Amino acid sequence: MPAYATNMRFKFPIVALTLEIITIILFAVFAVYDDGKGHGHDSHSNDTHHEEPPMKLYPMFQDVHVMIFIGFGFLMTFLKRYGFSSVGVNLLLAAFGLQWGLLMQGIWHLDNGKIKVNIFKMINADFSTATVLISFGAVLGKTSPVQLLIMTILEITIFSINEHLVASTLKASDVGASMIIHAYGAYFGLAVARVLYRPGLRDGHDNEGSVYHSDLFAMIGTVFLWMFWPSFNSAIAETPETQLNAVINTYLSLAACVLSAYAISSTHSERTLAGGVAVGTCADMNIEPFGAMVIGFVAGIISTLGFKYLTPILASNLGIQDTCGVHNLHGMPGILGGLAGIVNAFAARWKGQGLYSFSFSFHLSDQTINFLLQGLIMKLPFWGQPPDQNCFDDSIYWEVPEEEDENEESLAHADHSKNKAEA
Amino acid sequence: MPAYATNMRFKFPIVALTLEIITIILFAVFAVYDDGKGHGHDSHSNDTHHEEPPMKLYPMFQDVHVMIFIGFGFLMTFLKRYGFSSVGVNLLLAAFGLQWGLLMQGIWHLDNGKIKVNIFKMINADFSTATVLISFGAVLGKTSPVQLLIMTILEITIFSINEHLVASTLKASDVGASMIIHAYGAYFGLAVARVLYRPGLRDGHDNEGSVYHSDLFAMIGTVFLWMFWPSFNSAIAETPETQLNAVINTYLSLAACVLSAYAISSTHSERTLAGGVAVGTCADMNIEPFGAMVIGFVAGIISTLGFKYLTPILASNLGIQDTCGVHNLHGMPGILGGLAGIVNAFAARWKGQGLYSFSFSFHLSDQTINFLLQGLIMKLPFWGQPPDQNCFDDSIYWEVPEEEDENEESLAHADHSKNKAEA
Amino acid sequence: MPAYATNMRFKFPIVALTLEIITIILFAVFAVYDDGKGHGHDSHSNDTHHEEPPMKLYPMFQDVHVMIFIGFGFLMTFLKRYGFSSVGVNLLLAAFGLQWGLLMQGIWHLDNGKIKVNIFKMINADFSTATVLISFGAVLGKTSPVQLLIMTILEITIFSINEHLVASTLKASDVGASMIIHAYGAYFGLAVARVLYRPGLRDGHDNEGSVYHSDLFAMIGTVFLWMFWPSFNSAIAETPETQLNAVINTYLSLAACVLSAYAISSTHSERTLAGGVAVGTCADMNIEPFGAMVIGFVAGIISTLGFKYLTPILASNLGIQDTCGVHNLHGMPGILGGLAGIVNAFAARWKGQGLYSFSFSFHLSDQTINFLLQGLIMKLPFWGQPPDQNCFDDSIYWEVPEEEDENEESLAHADHSKNKAEA
Repeated sequence: MPAYATNMRFKFPIVALTLEIITIILFAVFAVYDDGKGHGHDSHSNDTHHEEPPMKLYPMFQDVHVMIFIGFGFLMTFLKRYGFSSVGVNLLLAAFGLQWGLLMQGIWHLDNGKIKVNIFKMINADFSTATVLISFGAVLGKTSPVQLLIMTILEITIFSINEHLVASTLKASDVGASMIIHAYGAYFGLAVARVLYRPGLRDGHDNEGSVYHSDLFAMIGTVFLWMFWPSFNSAIAETPETQLNAVINTYLSLAACVLSAYAISSTHSERTLAGGVAVGTCADMNIEPFGAMVIGFVAGIISTLGFKYLTPILASNLGIQDTCGVHNLHGMPGILGGLAGIVNAFAARWKGQGLYSFSFSFHLSDQTINFLLQGLIMKLPFWGQPPDQNCFDDSIYWEVPEEEDENEESLAHADHSKNKAEA
Repeated sequence: MPAYATNMRFKFPIVALTLEIITIILFAVFAVYDDGKGHGHDSHSNDTHHEEPPMKLYPMFQDVHVMIFIGFGFLMTFLKRYGFSSVGVNLLLAAFGLQWGLLMQGIWHLDNGKIKVNIFKMINADFSTATVLISFGAVLGKTSPVQLLIMTILEITIFSINEHLVASTLKASDVGASMIIHAYGAYFGLAVARVLYRPGLRDGHDNEGSVYHSDLFAMIGTVFLWMFWPSFNSAIAETPETQLNAVINTYLSLAACVLSAYAISSTHSERTLAGGVAVGTCADMNIEPFGAMVIGFVAGIISTLGFKYLTPILASNLGIQDTCGVHNLHGMPGILGGLAGIVNAFAARWKGQGLYSFSFSFHLSDQTINFLLQGLIMKLPFWGQPPDQNCFDDSIYWEVPEEEDENEESLAHADHSKNKAEA
Repeated sequence: MPAYATNMRFKFPIVALTLEIITIILFAVFAVYDDGKGHGHDSHSNDTHHEEPPMKLYPMFQDVHVMIFIGFGFLMTFLKRYGFSSVGVNLLLAAFGLQWGLLMQGIWHLDNGKIKVNIFKMINADFSTATVLISFGAVLGKTSPVQLLIMTILEITIFSINEHLVASTLKASDVGASMIIHAYGAYFGLAVARVLYRPGLRDGHDNEGSVYHSDLFAMIGTVFLWMFWPSFNSAIAETPETQLNAVINTYLSLAACVLSAYAISSTHSERTLAGGVAVGTCADMNIEPFGAMVIGFVAGIISTLGFKYLTPILASNLGIQDTCGVHNLHGMPGILGGLAGIVNAFAARWKGQGLYSFSFSFHLSDQTINFLLQGLIMKLPFWGQPPDQNCFDDSIYWEVPEEEDENEESLAHADHSKNKAEA
């Protein structure tokens, strides 16, 4: 490891071990298995799957799990020298985030002072980590693991409060969570990226590109996200019928999105995921199959145009350096999904849906201050943020094969070749 | 993008957007959610899973989905410079194919003039795309996305007619679909490859080989196909008991196939998939576990010998340049599976099974003309087929990292090395 | 293929075909489909899932299947030139092992002289192959496929006897099988590695390292194992409630393990799997969520320290060259899991659990002789063990792209570069 990272050598273990020990203590105090059915005293009010067999949602949970750990992890491996960090830090943040999410979401639904852990709550915990992993994409390569762990705590805590307000108090519907997961995660990440703006990276960085096989690894993440998105949007739908609707809508929206995204530009297949984000909010509504396809079709176009025209403007004019383009993949499609939800809610005069528009504006204004606060907290130099020249480079935090020199492998081959040529 | 591709820049978007818009209109007219149970008017006659809970088949569907998008996509990444196209075009064809398949298969089972979309129909739509992806393997690297979209429309339309004849009219059993999926897809692809014969590629092409890591990516596809094949062969079996039989038969056939395929030649693990193809037709029959193993054992040998001796003959004598060797992986094992089905049907004097042999010969003769017709349609120079020197090369249709030069990455390293050596 | 491998060209096919033919004959004699429910004569005594719908465990089975074939296969791809063998030989051993395991485990539960194959038995067969794949990790790169097939037969046969004694006779509980799968597999592998000790590899081997992308392939295996471990530890739990406990315990143990393993050393993410191993034995017990987290937390620390300090000592002082460090990943966490099971059993005065400590010591002492015997059998030079200089090299047993020269690809690029530079 380079000299730079030495002060990480102590800070990171101390922060990680301390957080985990605190978390274990909180679990010891609050968490128990969900045996509600067996014991007969059922005081859960908003756990709609409570009368179900305990393992019923498990296949759905595993699909979402694959999206979180393989999907998001490998989606970000496109950078030529940041693959270990993409998969590895993704695992770290998600592993901590799901524990923190179980606690933060659980305190709103205590049963005799306890959080009763079940598959439904585990799916929601995975959802809460998704917001962090989306934000991670915006600041990928420019932040230390310690900064990101702090971001995880703040983002999931705010998410849990927001989700509780939207879902319980305002009675708004956001099953696939276009807004409260995707738009929230994207704009949170962009706010952090703004605060952490680095003038030194204005003209790009040697490592901020991909190589052939790193892009192919990223396709593993893309395709797993694409395939399991119907599970993401349907896992916590209230009835088997609405679950089926959510699956069909997401499946068709994603399929239509592929055609429009490829038509505009076939160079980055991850844009085909925009359809899943955009159909999220109204996934379980009766928007009809073609309605879902129109949403996906539009999302594919918006997302692709955003990558082409909006990302450079954000970077040069607003100082937002969005490494993975989360604004195009989660931000705008998330807002599109929210708007589609509002339009559909008004059209259907759905009970409580009128409130969605309020929730929507509430949501955005409410968190701007939080974003800035958090950005400033994370900016404290204490947290081991990498200097410009070490951005997008695994070797600061990971032991990279063949010593620290990232060109070592090719060098060895080339030297070999040179010797042979000279012989 | 190189100058060559410029006329693709307009043709592909126009074709893709037009097809998707037409498809959305057809969905608006025909497709609704399957709410058959709730509304009580059940007029589906051959949807055998209709009384089931709506999400019952969902885990099976997701297994098949993984085979289609990860399995077929990564199976074809072995070419050193065609990985983006393998995974990316696979996604494009499958995304369009499943929409087209839902329409084409749905028109045979209209309910009050509507196609009621459910998980069972989504599995069948995935099956219809499998035929296209098999054919794609035969012409991999030598066709444009526009040609392939046209092939998708034709192949799935014919498949849906054929499937309807085999399944409904002839009452023949072909659960795992050795014949109507695998043999059909393979011989369709070979016919297209024949029409698109390129004398210029007779002596091979620089890019028609693999590199170490491209083969490892292909193993991801191979292993996912291998693992989930029991789901492919059992997903639409009629009862839980026949479903169990289909799972056990496929699982054992695949396992036995590994041993025989490795024994003959251990250099390409994808041959171990032949066992899944071959046991397809009789997967849900009472062939006993050892019967399934014998079929897999023989399939492994046939497939491996085919790669070694038959593929070169097809290329040099018949002008069929079969990039992925789909003849060995899907063609011959598919016929073996059809024959095994016939033998077993006669042995068991199964009701209606005697007709299988008729269906079998009908099937093959019927489509030869279609194949040739389609090949000729696709051959029209208008569709942007790549010239010989650009075959097997992502950079025609994709933005490849580090400009267009495929050696750029290694060059950079090597130059670096050179400078260092000279310094 | 190099000259060295020529005698493998005959030995391997003969051994593989002979084993498969014998296996098929044994299946013809013993194996039938499980139709127990239909026929009404239910004589299974310890098949606890017998009254269940036949396909109920299928999603769990597929999760375990992914762990066996993708998880173990890709976990071992970290070696720069042994990826084909890792995935390919993993497939070979698992495909043969599951057939052999079905037979060996089945003979303890015959029903009218027949082994009734069902999903429950298929999960157990996958478990039996897991022991072999763990041992494979210890001797990776230093053994021939023929040696490994012989190891598979011996290891699974002993495993099946041992499992029967532990599970049925001693009534000990080992659901996630910390001891009988992980510790057994690890120490079996270490014993074989000891007998096959190579003084010539004392100072390492050129190929015994990773390159950047080979480590990224290994992360695919790591993450799939991590995600599906809850299925591994819960698949055969007796009731839905204990299954839920096993899922929650494993999920939380793994999450806590990530934080502690990363805190001690963030360089190898596979150590985060130790939490799944360690919580195995008591996965379905009422250890409370925080108890599972403490076990995972400790396992992460032990595993990481073991890689750092113990592996070099084992190699230099005891002559045990443990390629993948299975001692740290499966051995010590397995024993930790066994101890946690004993402590918990005494604390809970669980029926029959007191016997576990006996089973535990019995288990270890009983097999030492077997290990040594097997090691000696495998050591016979007849079985085609590779010479020192060909260790960790795919090209002995696989056709590697670009002829046999492993540097060919880079050489070609470098030569290209050189020519360009000189021009």
